[in-house]
Amino acid sequence: MQLQARPRPIPAGFIDALKARFGERFSAAQSVREHHGRDESAYPAVLPDGVVYAQSTEDVAWVARHCHQHRVPLIAYGTGSSLEGHILAVQGGICLDLSGMNQIVAVNPEDLTVTVQAGVTRKQLNTEIRDTGLFFPIDPGADASLGGMTATRASGTNAVRYGTMRENVMNLKVVLADGRIIHTANRARKSSAGYDLTRLFVGSEGTLGIITEITVRLYPQPEAISAAVCNFPTMHAAVQSVIEIIQMGVPVARVEFMDLAGVKAINAYSKLDLHESPLLLFEFHGSPNGVREQAQTVQEITAGNGGMAFEWAEHPEDRSRLWAARHNAYFAGLHTRPGSRSNTTDVCVPISRLADCVSETAAELEQASFPYIIVGHVGDGNFHVQMMLDPNNPAEWDESERINHNIVARAIAMDGTCTGEHGVGLHKMDFMLAEHGRDALDLMQSVKQAFDPNNILNPGKVIPPA
Amino acid sequence: MQLQARPRPIPAGFIDALKARFGERFSAAQSVREHHGRDESAYPAVLPDGVVYAQSTEDVAWVARHCHQHRVPLIAYGTGSSLEGHILAVQGGICLDLSGMNQIVAVNPEDLTVTVQAGVTRKQLNTEIRDTGLFFPIDPGADASLGGMTATRASGTNAVRYGTMRENVMNLKVVLADGRIIHTANRARKSSAGYDLTRLFVGSEGTLGIITEITVRLYPQPEAISAAVCNFPTMHAAVQSVIEIIQMGVPVARVEFMDLAGVKAINAYSKLDLHESPLLLFEFHGSPNGVREQAQTVQEITAGNGGMAFEWAEHPEDRSRLWAARHNAYFAGLHTRPGSRSNTTDVCVPISRLADCVSETAAELEQASFPYIIVGHVGDGNFHVQMMLDPNNPAEWDESERINHNIVARAIAMDGTCTGEHGVGLHKMDFMLAEHGRDALDLMQSVKQAFDPNNILNPGKVIPPA
Repeated sequence: MQLQARPRPIPAGFIDALKARFGERFSAAQSVREHHGRDESAYPAVLPDGVVYAQSTEDVAWVARHCHQHRVPLIAYGTGSSLEGHILAVQGGICLDLSGMNQIVAVNPEDLTVTVQAGVTRKQLNTEIRDTGLFFPIDPGADASLGGMTATRASGTNAVRYGTMRENVMNLKVVLADGRIIHTANRARKSSAGYDLTRLFVGSEGTLGIITEITVRLYPQPEAISAAVCNFPTMHAAVQSVIEIIQMGVPVARVEFMDLAGVKAINAYSKLDLHESPLLLFEFHGSPNGVREQAQTVQEITAGNGGMAFEWAEHPEDRSRLWAARHNAYFAGLHTRPGSRSNTTDVCVPISRLADCVSETAAELEQASFPYIIVGHVGDGNFHVQMMLDPNNPAEWDESERINHNIVARAIAMDGTCTGEHGVGLHKMDFMLAEHGRDALDLMQSVKQAFDPNNILNPGKVIPPA
Repeated sequence: MQLQARPRPIPAGFIDALKARFGERFSAAQSVREHHGRDESAYPAVLPDGVVYAQSTEDVAWVARHCHQHRVPLIAYGTGSSLEGHILAVQGGICLDLSGMNQIVAVNPEDLTVTVQAGVTRKQLNTEIRDTGLFFPIDPGADASLGGMTATRASGTNAVRYGTMRENVMNLKVVLADGRIIHTANRARKSSAGYDLTRLFVGSEGTLGIITEITVRLYPQPEAISAAVCNFPTMHAAVQSVIEIIQMGVPVARVEFMDLAGVKAINAYSKLDLHESPLLLFEFHGSPNGVREQAQTVQEITAGNGGMAFEWAEHPEDRSRLWAARHNAYFAGLHTRPGSRSNTTDVCVPISRLADCVSETAAELEQASFPYIIVGHVGDGNFHVQMMLDPNNPAEWDESERINHNIVARAIAMDGTCTGEHGVGLHKMDFMLAEHGRDALDLMQSVKQAFDPNNILNPGKVIPPA
């Protein structure tokens, strides 16, 4: 795949100033720049001019101030697990690695909130708060940083019950383009005090400000948890079951779809012996009675659609193994074709259109010249096609892009979105016009202009040029 | 209370153009302007120069275009139930009455969504969708319009379970200041496609655009509903119970606090015979077993705090009567002092600080020279003090303002907000600086400037002058 990188000139003395300020916490070494110039997308690396390892909001503010003054691009970096080229330095500049900002700032168990620095990862967070009896549910699969998850409006398997980062971020500390530091809200559960700056930064992919602290909602660890697998004769039967479950209002915590190829891939990769047909993975949270009730309703619905008997993951270890396998589906997919890189779609449609969208997509994919798997957070109407491509065969990339284009067009025609959770980055910019229309994009651009007049914050992302 | 109204001059011919376009749907009659120049706040009416009764998004766009061109203020009006002076024409201009835009545009029961015009009220909506088995939970008490509820980020009694307008609006059709028409999103349950324009308009109080259509989430009508009243020996015992209920994660649908004076007021006004001590009103939604389980847990918690036995509202009629009484608490309050108008506070704090905030506030109020009641959506940490004032006695207003000021300062010091759900309007502008800080306010102002460069949309509201 092609990328037009247009690095901006770095003014004389700029790099020296960073070295003077940060010492060994600044690096322009090739290996460090390469590591920070790529994500999990299929794009080739595009290197920043240097990397600063930030340890505090003040570090970030210092760098922002200098970049703003000298019009040098500034790209925030969490764990590098983004999928759409979010962090590639297409205009050069400084990468700000926030992984060292990994402190829990304040746990408030009595308010069900926690405040963390941007580099804290979701697994670290859940480990550190385990003793409180609370947990943070948002789970995009990768062990992403909370800063990155906020910036991409991440969600994942638990969103059907607990919502996405949009619903779970309460307050942010943000460094603005010129180095000023603001908080966007407070710890009240609701407020009508002015414009929703919090939600404006959630999903802004580092283009409006650098998020350095995040306050999120926590939830009591459920009294009871149970998980089960249900196999279906057809993809359609599985998806139809999900639609009915959502319409009934069953508060499932997770409901994940996997097609036949996906099941085979995770069986091989994670050494499982799941029955090989399209399936749904369920998790139920609640009181012991509540969980039983939910499971019973769901079983009635799946049986009515030809689903097989539930296979229960009885023990916590079995459950962990099942979800670890689901989370590794991405790597399992890559493993089906050694040496491949993937192009992964991410549409989300209203639930009533999900069966149509998946079926039409599956029909189109039958002609594909490469292997693929379909998985999805189907309770939200969100599914992914992961296409495994030979990185040395541009024709395969082009073919996958045509398919992606068709899937997005199909989703938008169904009143859906080109990206349910991965974000825009570089790769979805082409679809923003079709999804939002020119006037809404102009409005987004006017926000960008107001927040970042020198266009230093992750430039060349999210909003396509007019 | 004083208001500095500074009407802008209306250019010659402007009113004639409106008359020519709208005929009888334009009015400059004194009575019509008076009706549209005030809300439920204690402010005196400040009249617009004329009122347009819009019937379509195109009507709104036409008016916006003309107001933009001639720099004439434009104020959207729903039902006039706002509480902070939101709709007062402090710079004159045109009031756009949207109550005639009262069509349900599309019901999508299979997706649990509905799209309505801005003038549809919440009661109308629930009546019209009753046959679908779904309902719209957000309930601010007043039978407000969905447009107004969106613009003020309303919430109310059900928010503890179902969230506020922030969480329940999926998509908006908005007329921008210059008359362009955009949609902010689509009907996918989640999306990471760019900046969250939806949430930016939610709570913007008519200052960033005029909302003409709203798509909101619906929920299955609960299989079982039960409601109960629980009396307590003290305010503190009641509030402490709520804190424990929330911390346990019990999914109560409603939990409302009322102080002794509030109980007396609604007994008198709504002819009830509630036991006269501080109380909590509960509603539970779920399966029959789920509701039983929730009620049992809650009863254990309330009993542990000295709460009396639950009094159940057994029949749907009893339940409706109880909630109608709660919704009429505002009028019941006014009724305790005939001829009064009220000044109502609206702070919201983290739940761990709620007992302190209410207790300190109650202690301060003991010195007040006028009657007051305290009610609250306490599950969210939000409570209201309604102070009943003699409108002809400025000293009482000043005293109530001092108290309000202290309550807000207390809430902000506790990491809370000056307004949980009523919005800023005119009355909360003085607190925006303390709550957000200068830099965050400047950012809000830059959004306003980008969206409404001629400052025609509800000018003089939300953001205080720098």
